[in-house]
Amino acid sequence: MRKVVMHAPRDVRVEDVERPRIVEPTDAIVRLAATCICGSDLWPYRGADEIIRPQPMGHEYCGVVEEVGSAVRDVEVGQFVVGSFFASDGTCEICRSGYQTGCVHRQPGAPEGAQAEYARIPLADGTLVATPGMPDADLVPSLLAASDVLGTGWFGAVAAEAGPGKTVAVVGDGAVGLCAVLAAKQLGAERIIAFSRHADRQALAREFGATDVVEERGEEGIARVRELTGGLGAHSVVEAVGTHESMHQAIGSTRAGGHVGFVGVLHDVTITGDDIFMTHVHLHGGPAPVRRFLPDLIDRIWKREIDPGRVFDLELPLEEAAEGYRAMDERRATKVLLRP
Amino acid sequence: MRKVVMHAPRDVRVEDVERPRIVEPTDAIVRLAATCICGSDLWPYRGADEIIRPQPMGHEYCGVVEEVGSAVRDVEVGQFVVGSFFASDGTCEICRSGYQTGCVHRQPGAPEGAQAEYARIPLADGTLVATPGMPDADLVPSLLAASDVLGTGWFGAVAAEAGPGKTVAVVGDGAVGLCAVLAAKQLGAERIIAFSRHADRQALAREFGATDVVEERGEEGIARVRELTGGLGAHSVVEAVGTHESMHQAIGSTRAGGHVGFVGVLHDVTITGDDIFMTHVHLHGGPAPVRRFLPDLIDRIWKREIDPGRVFDLELPLEEAAEGYRAMDERRATKVLLRP
Repeated sequence: MRKVVMHAPRDVRVEDVERPRIVEPTDAIVRLAATCICGSDLWPYRGADEIIRPQPMGHEYCGVVEEVGSAVRDVEVGQFVVGSFFASDGTCEICRSGYQTGCVHRQPGAPEGAQAEYARIPLADGTLVATPGMPDADLVPSLLAASDVLGTGWFGAVAAEAGPGKTVAVVGDGAVGLCAVLAAKQLGAERIIAFSRHADRQALAREFGATDVVEERGEEGIARVRELTGGLGAHSVVEAVGTHESMHQAIGSTRAGGHVGFVGVLHDVTITGDDIFMTHVHLHGGPAPVRRFLPDLIDRIWKREIDPGRVFDLELPLEEAAEGYRAMDERRATKVLLRP
Repeated sequence: MRKVVMHAPRDVRVEDVERPRIVEPTDAIVRLAATCICGSDLWPYRGADEIIRPQPMGHEYCGVVEEVGSAVRDVEVGQFVVGSFFASDGTCEICRSGYQTGCVHRQPGAPEGAQAEYARIPLADGTLVATPGMPDADLVPSLLAASDVLGTGWFGAVAAEAGPGKTVAVVGDGAVGLCAVLAAKQLGAERIIAFSRHADRQALAREFGATDVVEERGEEGIARVRELTGGLGAHSVVEAVGTHESMHQAIGSTRAGGHVGFVGVLHDVTITGDDIFMTHVHLHGGPAPVRRFLPDLIDRIWKREIDPGRVFDLELPLEEAAEGYRAMDERRATKVLLRP
């Protein structure tokens, strides 16, 4: 089969490899209907993360179950499934509390990569969720988005306690930030402030439910949110970038007693007592337990209530993965869908 | 009247001063039934906080209303009242959301000091809560505790989401930590782990509801909590010290998806992305909005369901305040009650 492998920064190749096989009896093999490139895939691409050996890429996936291990009970061959970027057993205390990304048996969701024709998914019963039937083609991008960016934005909004009567601000206008806007709207937020400087992303944010757009950043951005909220700050702020600056922009935009939900992978972030003591903010986040939300997200997509697949603004055949990486690196695309 | 004034580190005097007067029409003057020395009063006493001019001390108080300003509506002369260490208007959006210590008109609860015979309390209607009648003498220490240490420990337990079925750990065995143990018990926690190395505090922690005591600190303390919780960590951890080490002990003792409620005034604490991203902990705390809890706490004390006054292990006349400071500084007392 064909699979995307990164050999070095900016050296992405599509190669012939053997189809993955069942390793553990709890595994499933999924024939991928669609996969995609994640913002986090750009870290090694840009040389920020070291590549020690040729690295299979991709952790977002949906498709049809081709084969299951002998211990798999709930997932059946022929089902269309969506899974998360972390595999989880679904039975441990942490999973049952809704933190499947903290599962005591946590593993990568697609250990040999998901930018490929087939992927091996561990702990299939705990990890995969079947759709009600075979999806129409136009639903596939949205189901793929549920696998990571939608689930992550949704968790950010939940962690920030977005809901009716709340003003929600979202720091970051990438695919995750845009999905957080969509989530805040679905969760009933009254007012949604999107931080964004890009006209196309501002437009999609507004379509997803943003009521206000703030172009300023840092202290100026914070001042603007306070101005929009009677001097108090937003009730709920989603941090969807992961830098020191964006985290502090999020904390500063939150009112006393408000909630920051952070889902951007944190890089070199430092928080001091002064940032969190007198400000009374709640901080919660981390790698989204997407599995918690998948049944609900699939249901909303299936009923065509939400269309998160719109975050994909470039679609390419898997063979052209290298061009997909270039397009995201050069910011010509927000999020690239790859068709195996 | 007599009042405690700190002139320099270790120089605490009781002096004759004028009785405080109504300054704003929203003020009340309270004749204090009891007051006390706070752990935070030891910061200037030990020279860690600078003393620029002679400093009136004390912010914990209860007593009888002697006089009210012309705009005071809900508080009446003759009532026995308890208030918080921050005065709050009770009407702003932040107050109404339960974060009175973040009130947009926040002021010190007793701006001219509460280690005195009388104190001026600003924003009396928002700040003071009357008891159902004149309390029996044995209830006064508990009502005084409600003013700060009980309210603060209670907020720590609430911020850590202590409740039925939960395992709660408490870092810090001072008056606040002990009150957090009491709060966790009252809130229905199933198991309460107190970190403590002092036999007398361990004993009171157990009387207040602790089921386990851990003497180890740091990594060893964390390992011990994990051992006691099937490797997972506690659901809820209250941080009642405020140092970098104690905060990290609290975070490390918390399970994925669990809650840290921090109420120790944070000193030189640094938190990185690694501390909060993959660990999935919730962080929330700050100066306790004691006012939120006062009606409930007074009710529980009035019904003799709780006896938080037991944290006072030394009682002295106000005249002997200097000895009270010495006793706390030398750790001969956990918490000193002063009788005006």
